[in-house]
Amino acid sequence: MGRAVLSSSLVSLRPRIPAVPNPFLPNSMPNNALRFPSKISRGSRTRAAAVSESPTGRLFPRVAAESTGPIPAAELLKVVETAARTGAEVVMEAVNKPRNINYKGITDLVTDTDKLSESVILEVVKKNFKDHLILGEEGGLIGDSLSEYLWCIDPLDGTTNFAHGYPSFAVSVGVLFRGKPAAASVVEFVGGPMCWNTRTFCASSGGGAFCNGQKIHVSQTDQVERSLLVTGFGYEHDDAWATNINLFKEFTDISRGVRRLGAAAVDMSHVALGIVEAYWEYRLKPWDMAAGVLMVEEAGGVVTRMDGGKFTVFDRSVLVSNGIVHEKLLERIGPATEELKKKGIDFSLWFKPENYSTDS
Amino acid sequence: MGRAVLSSSLVSLRPRIPAVPNPFLPNSMPNNALRFPSKISRGSRTRAAAVSESPTGRLFPRVAAESTGPIPAAELLKVVETAARTGAEVVMEAVNKPRNINYKGITDLVTDTDKLSESVILEVVKKNFKDHLILGEEGGLIGDSLSEYLWCIDPLDGTTNFAHGYPSFAVSVGVLFRGKPAAASVVEFVGGPMCWNTRTFCASSGGGAFCNGQKIHVSQTDQVERSLLVTGFGYEHDDAWATNINLFKEFTDISRGVRRLGAAAVDMSHVALGIVEAYWEYRLKPWDMAAGVLMVEEAGGVVTRMDGGKFTVFDRSVLVSNGIVHEKLLERIGPATEELKKKGIDFSLWFKPENYSTDS
Repeated sequence: MGRAVLSSSLVSLRPRIPAVPNPFLPNSMPNNALRFPSKISRGSRTRAAAVSESPTGRLFPRVAAESTGPIPAAELLKVVETAARTGAEVVMEAVNKPRNINYKGITDLVTDTDKLSESVILEVVKKNFKDHLILGEEGGLIGDSLSEYLWCIDPLDGTTNFAHGYPSFAVSVGVLFRGKPAAASVVEFVGGPMCWNTRTFCASSGGGAFCNGQKIHVSQTDQVERSLLVTGFGYEHDDAWATNINLFKEFTDISRGVRRLGAAAVDMSHVALGIVEAYWEYRLKPWDMAAGVLMVEEAGGVVTRMDGGKFTVFDRSVLVSNGIVHEKLLERIGPATEELKKKGIDFSLWFKPENYSTDS
Repeated sequence: MGRAVLSSSLVSLRPRIPAVPNPFLPNSMPNNALRFPSKISRGSRTRAAAVSESPTGRLFPRVAAESTGPIPAAELLKVVETAARTGAEVVMEAVNKPRNINYKGITDLVTDTDKLSESVILEVVKKNFKDHLILGEEGGLIGDSLSEYLWCIDPLDGTTNFAHGYPSFAVSVGVLFRGKPAAASVVEFVGGPMCWNTRTFCASSGGGAFCNGQKIHVSQTDQVERSLLVTGFGYEHDDAWATNINLFKEFTDISRGVRRLGAAAVDMSHVALGIVEAYWEYRLKPWDMAAGVLMVEEAGGVVTRMDGGKFTVFDRSVLVSNGIVHEKLLERIGPATEELKKKGIDFSLWFKPENYSTDS
């Protein structure tokens, strides 16, 4: 772990931001001509500092895999997207069924839908890649632990929302190559009763992020005060939960607002889509995060742990943002997380399959 | 104000809940055969208490007008819905336009859309009812203060969400007859980029609530522990704001979750739709609430102030729920609000037009 920076896997604070004329500049030169003197802009200050809230030029290491490995990106992505869409068909069928208002029934319904969605996703993966390792929220670990590929599957992210018919929830499928996200798809359920619909996100390492086939980018908002944020609260109500309630309060106070929607893969996809600037949460599992973090990074955003350290999908905290406000957010989120570590709260890696080989 | 109960305008805790077989009853008799021995069930205990979290049989006064007055409900509703849809067309056109990522621009865009939406709504109202009084979020009060009808118009509820392209936001149009909601329509924008859509809610006093033409009902969830809740935080960060952060924390702890979506009319419509059990907020304005509260009540829910007192749209707090969990919620929300009153926080009526006649 640590903060070792691999020179071959750096993301600048503002990768891939499209050229938008800045009315505050004396001419119509696109901002990024000033902001991005080179693709790897480390150490480059010049006038970039003047239009940045992050004058340190700090870079965050990429969390994505270097490549999709021996499987071509297009092939891997096709299977990932097919898997997610196949799971989503199961969920959509359940959403449209008349609801049993009894809660015990609804819990059963959710469980059935979770399991059925996961089983059809597994079928797609196994049919295409017999020897890959698979980590599903419902079924746990199956497959060959010597595989370099690990599939992280959340067949229904946002179960509570699903049970209530409250948008949004999602099917999330991410595949790691040697421990790092290589390809991902998230099918988000939007709208709700009377107008259910889906929106499909996908991304591959180095290939960009897309929504319904269109390339997407994180927002260019450069101030926390003008940011719309989103967070989540897990089921365990411990010190980390209480810390995040405080962060919710602090950021509600100083930002445009903190949304609380209830599905991690959806929230991260929304950062990638540019409709919110950042999202953070403690204690997510690999299947909650594997797809979402790749989506954000490939849309030009940044991913770290909540202490600012280098993130892996086996970590117990995540902060994703448009990159531009990342350091500003870490000024509050970082120290709060350090306090938890001092208290002895466990932030060690979890759900990392034994014998599964990962790059550093 | 006070808690005076008008016998002619009572709602029971569970009005209009459809017959759903209860698996815990020894036979397939519909629940409501037990729950609703009469339309006005005050004092009726029998076995109703056994299936209720509110064994006191407490009733909350209706907040809706007795009728739509001299204008037939169908006629009033048609104009209300036309007005909301006309505003929504303006908003939809703005949503689909390419976004200027510069924030000053976005603020202008919002303002333009707000104003344009309100102006087309006003045209519809004035064309149909020349002498009605109108209170718009943007334009303030216009028309004849001697009119018994007061239109409360929010041309774009959830401005921050709109600016970010984050669902949901809405156009909200409610019309009061002698100070009480008589007819209402809310056009909600759902989905977001790549899949914008709208959902239209409408309701009239005594005529039920509808979404996209289908009759809707609040949920039957009877435990806070199994409830999905939603709240909002205003722009003024004072004692009431801090109190609601505490309520957010408390209910996040004990319920299925507290959502924070950012548009009052939308949140209330979601209670009416039965996808969340309750919503509360301090300091909303009449144009935020007039339509939403009628939607909830006509869908079988209950509306009070956050101290539990009888609500009018000129009040500074609102709690809407499915009715069944209302008292349970008030056990925490009520005392917290009483504390604010003890501190001298202003809960007097506001935005009530001078000379406008209201029923008690």
